[in-house]
Amino acid sequence: MTFRFPRSGRLAAVAALLAAVAGPGRADEGMWLYSAPPRAQIKAKYGFDLTDAWLEHLMKSSVRFNSGGSGSFVSADGLVITNHHVASDDLQKLSDEKNNYLRDGFTARSLAEEKKLVDLELNVLQSIEDVTARVNAGIPAGAAGAEAAAARRKIIAEIEKESLDKTGLRSDVVTLWQGGAYHLYRFKKYTDVRLVWAPEQQAAFFGGDPDNFEFPRFNLDATVYRAYENGQPAKIAHYLKWSQAGTKEGDLTFVSGHPGSTNRQFTMAELQFLRDTQYPYVVPRLKRLEVLLKSWGDRSEENARRAKDDLFGIQNSRKVYDGRQAGLFSPAIMGPKAAQEKAFKQQVGDRADGAAVRAAYDRLAETALAQAKLYRRYRLLEGGHAFMSDSFAFARSLLRAGDERPKPNGERLREFGDARKASFEQNLFSEKPVYADLEIVLLGEALTFFAEAAGFDDPVVQQVLAGQSPRDRAAALIGGTKVRDVAFRKKLYEGGAAAVAAAKDPLIELARLVDAEARALRKQWEALEETKQQAHATIEKARFAIEGPTRAPDATFTLRLSYGPVKGYVEGGKQVPAYTTLGGIYTRNTEHKNKEPFDLPQRWFDKKAALDLNTPFNFVHTPDIIGGNSGSPVVNTKGEFVGIIFDGNIQSLVGDFAYEDVQARAISVDCRAILEAMKKVYQADALAAELIAGKR
Amino acid sequence: MTFRFPRSGRLAAVAALLAAVAGPGRADEGMWLYSAPPRAQIKAKYGFDLTDAWLEHLMKSSVRFNSGGSGSFVSADGLVITNHHVASDDLQKLSDEKNNYLRDGFTARSLAEEKKLVDLELNVLQSIEDVTARVNAGIPAGAAGAEAAAARRKIIAEIEKESLDKTGLRSDVVTLWQGGAYHLYRFKKYTDVRLVWAPEQQAAFFGGDPDNFEFPRFNLDATVYRAYENGQPAKIAHYLKWSQAGTKEGDLTFVSGHPGSTNRQFTMAELQFLRDTQYPYVVPRLKRLEVLLKSWGDRSEENARRAKDDLFGIQNSRKVYDGRQAGLFSPAIMGPKAAQEKAFKQQVGDRADGAAVRAAYDRLAETALAQAKLYRRYRLLEGGHAFMSDSFAFARSLLRAGDERPKPNGERLREFGDARKASFEQNLFSEKPVYADLEIVLLGEALTFFAEAAGFDDPVVQQVLAGQSPRDRAAALIGGTKVRDVAFRKKLYEGGAAAVAAAKDPLIELARLVDAEARALRKQWEALEETKQQAHATIEKARFAIEGPTRAPDATFTLRLSYGPVKGYVEGGKQVPAYTTLGGIYTRNTEHKNKEPFDLPQRWFDKKAALDLNTPFNFVHTPDIIGGNSGSPVVNTKGEFVGIIFDGNIQSLVGDFAYEDVQARAISVDCRAILEAMKKVYQADALAAELIAGKR
Repeated sequence: MTFRFPRSGRLAAVAALLAAVAGPGRADEGMWLYSAPPRAQIKAKYGFDLTDAWLEHLMKSSVRFNSGGSGSFVSADGLVITNHHVASDDLQKLSDEKNNYLRDGFTARSLAEEKKLVDLELNVLQSIEDVTARVNAGIPAGAAGAEAAAARRKIIAEIEKESLDKTGLRSDVVTLWQGGAYHLYRFKKYTDVRLVWAPEQQAAFFGGDPDNFEFPRFNLDATVYRAYENGQPAKIAHYLKWSQAGTKEGDLTFVSGHPGSTNRQFTMAELQFLRDTQYPYVVPRLKRLEVLLKSWGDRSEENARRAKDDLFGIQNSRKVYDGRQAGLFSPAIMGPKAAQEKAFKQQVGDRADGAAVRAAYDRLAETALAQAKLYRRYRLLEGGHAFMSDSFAFARSLLRAGDERPKPNGERLREFGDARKASFEQNLFSEKPVYADLEIVLLGEALTFFAEAAGFDDPVVQQVLAGQSPRDRAAALIGGTKVRDVAFRKKLYEGGAAAVAAAKDPLIELARLVDAEARALRKQWEALEETKQQAHATIEKARFAIEGPTRAPDATFTLRLSYGPVKGYVEGGKQVPAYTTLGGIYTRNTEHKNKEPFDLPQRWFDKKAALDLNTPFNFVHTPDIIGGNSGSPVVNTKGEFVGIIFDGNIQSLVGDFAYEDVQARAISVDCRAILEAMKKVYQADALAAELIAGKR
Repeated sequence: MTFRFPRSGRLAAVAALLAAVAGPGRADEGMWLYSAPPRAQIKAKYGFDLTDAWLEHLMKSSVRFNSGGSGSFVSADGLVITNHHVASDDLQKLSDEKNNYLRDGFTARSLAEEKKLVDLELNVLQSIEDVTARVNAGIPAGAAGAEAAAARRKIIAEIEKESLDKTGLRSDVVTLWQGGAYHLYRFKKYTDVRLVWAPEQQAAFFGGDPDNFEFPRFNLDATVYRAYENGQPAKIAHYLKWSQAGTKEGDLTFVSGHPGSTNRQFTMAELQFLRDTQYPYVVPRLKRLEVLLKSWGDRSEENARRAKDDLFGIQNSRKVYDGRQAGLFSPAIMGPKAAQEKAFKQQVGDRADGAAVRAAYDRLAETALAQAKLYRRYRLLEGGHAFMSDSFAFARSLLRAGDERPKPNGERLREFGDARKASFEQNLFSEKPVYADLEIVLLGEALTFFAEAAGFDDPVVQQVLAGQSPRDRAAALIGGTKVRDVAFRKKLYEGGAAAVAAAKDPLIELARLVDAEARALRKQWEALEETKQQAHATIEKARFAIEGPTRAPDATFTLRLSYGPVKGYVEGGKQVPAYTTLGGIYTRNTEHKNKEPFDLPQRWFDKKAALDLNTPFNFVHTPDIIGGNSGSPVVNTKGEFVGIIFDGNIQSLVGDFAYEDVQARAISVDCRAILEAMKKVYQADALAAELIAGKR
């Protein structure tokens, strides 16, 4: 699964291909800003005009999931389609011991049956405004590090608050080009969202972890929600018309979604930080979590249900990071990047800004070293890895809300800004189930990890453990805290710092115990990030002067447009066709003797005879995507919905650092398979009719 | 699974109980030497006399598996019984794409059908001789570190060679009391061993990883081999009579087997080395290997078959090390140990040897620090973790055999000593299948781990990778080497160093590339081990003078005797009965809806009606065991076979550091269940009859 951002990203191994990435912006590279679309490139290569109206329609039909992921409106009455694996978190939260919607799927036969989701927020981009000048003007001349970071945070909070007050829209200032520009994004929000249809997880994620990031694939990775306003289906002006014809090999496709993060602008020093510091921390941590959740889940069916969504997310990330690490260790990938950097430095050598650019590279190298020193402790304490659990997240949110909210808007930690208040509360008061047994397992592991990573004799470790073993301490903390009670959270949030202190909740007090150091680490970290942004701004300015607007900025979990044709590829000397069919899922099921994770829901056997087995099921194409793009609509030149992104292949995982289109592919569910399955397997005829008609 | 040594050991979490270990040798602690059995303790507590004849009979009926594990003779015609999970490695080697004996089990209906195992060696202890004085006399006065280690290696090789030449028996000098004594063990060897009967793995390891180290349990964890000599069933003078009556709660039991390793004599400094250096390396490494093998195995049934035995071993070790790490992080366990050490130091304070003992503790603390500095690189290069694969093990064996064999016996690395030649060759020329695809996966992971652990820019990492990514390099090395061909290995071994060099085999050349550093690391490590042995000898001498012979030495994978009654325990306020029954396996199967790993072979459903479901299946008792004891016979006071050790419960995992008998238990398969299943489920009537009669 390309998966929800921030859970994922991608990366991989194949080497010789990477010659293809030597030049900037070659092939169809780029996750383009809607405010700077690649009109010229598309016109030149495909003869197609990106008009303003076409762009606005697609932009306003595109939906961001605050849980990480993308989607789109597909009816005038508020239907939203996304991936099942983007929805899985919501399905998990809706489920309990009796109803397992994640495993068993769901079809609403009427509006009344549509099930309200626990805490989902959808965002629809309305406008983009360049506020770079205003943001930079807010930084005192010559300010750097922590001072500049504080000033920047302040001016950004001011801009966001002003926009929220003026428009009522969610307003986020987005950092682009790693600091080269700042744009204000305004989103319309939907917080009443209901479940309309979901297949069984086994149909959506057929082949499980073994087939993840592979092709050919056979996944019905789609789920349909409906946005509501004032208790009624939302009236939607911009939605995508569902194509019944679909695509054929060679057709140009567009992807409109929210790629989470890429690091293509990273300098070699920053890539070395990833290679030598971040990945050696992240990769083993993912694997120990995978083992933990897998083995705990195997103890009983109910354990498995409770752990499943988290486990899938971790397994997905593990594949992604393994692939990326392979890229970082691959001379075939890193060699060309080093050569490009060297060439660029030479190129600016004689220009007036040459010295400034070289100094910026040096500063980035120093910053990478400084971040390497901070990294582990920063992730443990401020990143919360030492206390990983929903309960701790609630406890810290309550503690910090009490401390932050009385401060002036511009001086708060960013997540406590006025412009983010509604979203913050949506999260804090979520009614999602939090299971004490799983929380103890997670927190016990986290405290063990903390003791191992920071050293058992570390004074903070000793204070945190308070004379108990990690497992005993976790059981005591989770047993003693009341933060899993929503009413308790509301009371403390409303009561502010005094109520929080008076509660003497053991987990909140634990959060308090480490809060000073955690905040100090964050402050140092953000000062270094500020330094990096300033350095990148210098480099990007020089690059723009030399190259012009030939690239898109790195991904930032904001709306982007990618493009490229439907296209098979060659692997191991064999042609991999661009499309699979519904019939293929039965073939693969038989190969694996219906064994997990290649088993099929009974319904799929019962309805096999009714299905047109030649219906195109999944297909590959070349648009530039990454984690966060999951659920992105795929549209044709007419702007019609022809499919939905759900994955990239193994070869695409290097996408974090570099794009190629020789073997790397995005993988989508075909619009035709979705309709066929809805009608023939799920008898969701009314829903299918609404998708075809574009209204109820 | 208590599992084969060196794969396992055990440990755990329960805390308050550990008060019970405050004093030395309390309860029924101890894995006793046959040369110093606990006659007085057993007489005093159970009124039973351990006679010389009883001991000799049990000793000579006990069998050590060179693959790690224990067993016993159970018929005059050479039948040997062990655990299925000890045999699984042999079953895996016998299996191929067509015959999966590990999964499906096997029953020989005649001698002719008995299947010769690939490379198993069985050892039966014949005598024990104390050679401490001779070994210590071989160390020049005042020698320490590397010099003393070399001298000790030399005198040991001399003793072993002399014994082999004189007796023809395998002769190993064993280090006891962490260096307090040296004993010469002589073993009769059997190298023609054949498979007679094995159940399906699903019956032997029912409940898989989730139920591993748990009780109640329902595992038919047994397999029967037959030892041959000169092509005929071996004639065995000492074998155990099979009890048809079995045991009842409260009965005294004895366990005769080969516990692999314990660290109960470790000082606090040495335990801190485990906690701060060894475990933070071992635990995450096990988890990454588990994820690697699990995800690769999930790709296809054949992959799963190839990886299964290794995967089970790793999962087992992971549970063991997780539990031990919890013990190292538990004040309830480490607190009493620290208090004991302090008390002992005070006790020796005024004695003549007080200063020497304190100095020994100081030396152990210095040594622990020095080992912490060496540890990672030592494991990577000399331990072979950087190149983990059977192919590399063959390559290094060939390289070093060429270099070592021309040296005088006493100057060789220990494994190349004359006394070990036959066993070494048995391993090197093993016909076991080695799969290139799995080897590439393993070596690719190992090289990645090396790059991560040592740093990508490390000069040796760069030389090893030779400009390729870890995965590409692994594919090139495994694709290029010929060491998987037995004939090639024989040719190079016979040709010596010149033939090895002439072959220019890429994997052997890789082994050569790192050999100088690996040997240097080993030399440093062994010098530190020598220092530790001298220090422990000093401490143990003082302890013996104060306490007398009240303890057994730490486990060393040599034959030991443990004892204790069959006894249930209380957990979470509930009584856990001492026995389960055959009927229980069906109940648990139903609870888990016949889902893996709680599924049963079809045969078990077909034969259910024939089975006496009240037959005792598994039981718990208190003898002191640890990894390596797997397959140990359990005997009653009459010396009859009443069961077979296969596991300890979760609470027993702290056994590496401390023994308790409040909750910690050994878990055995009852002799009655084995007979009942053989007769009713497997129709192995002739085999059952031979076990009852004690002969064919």
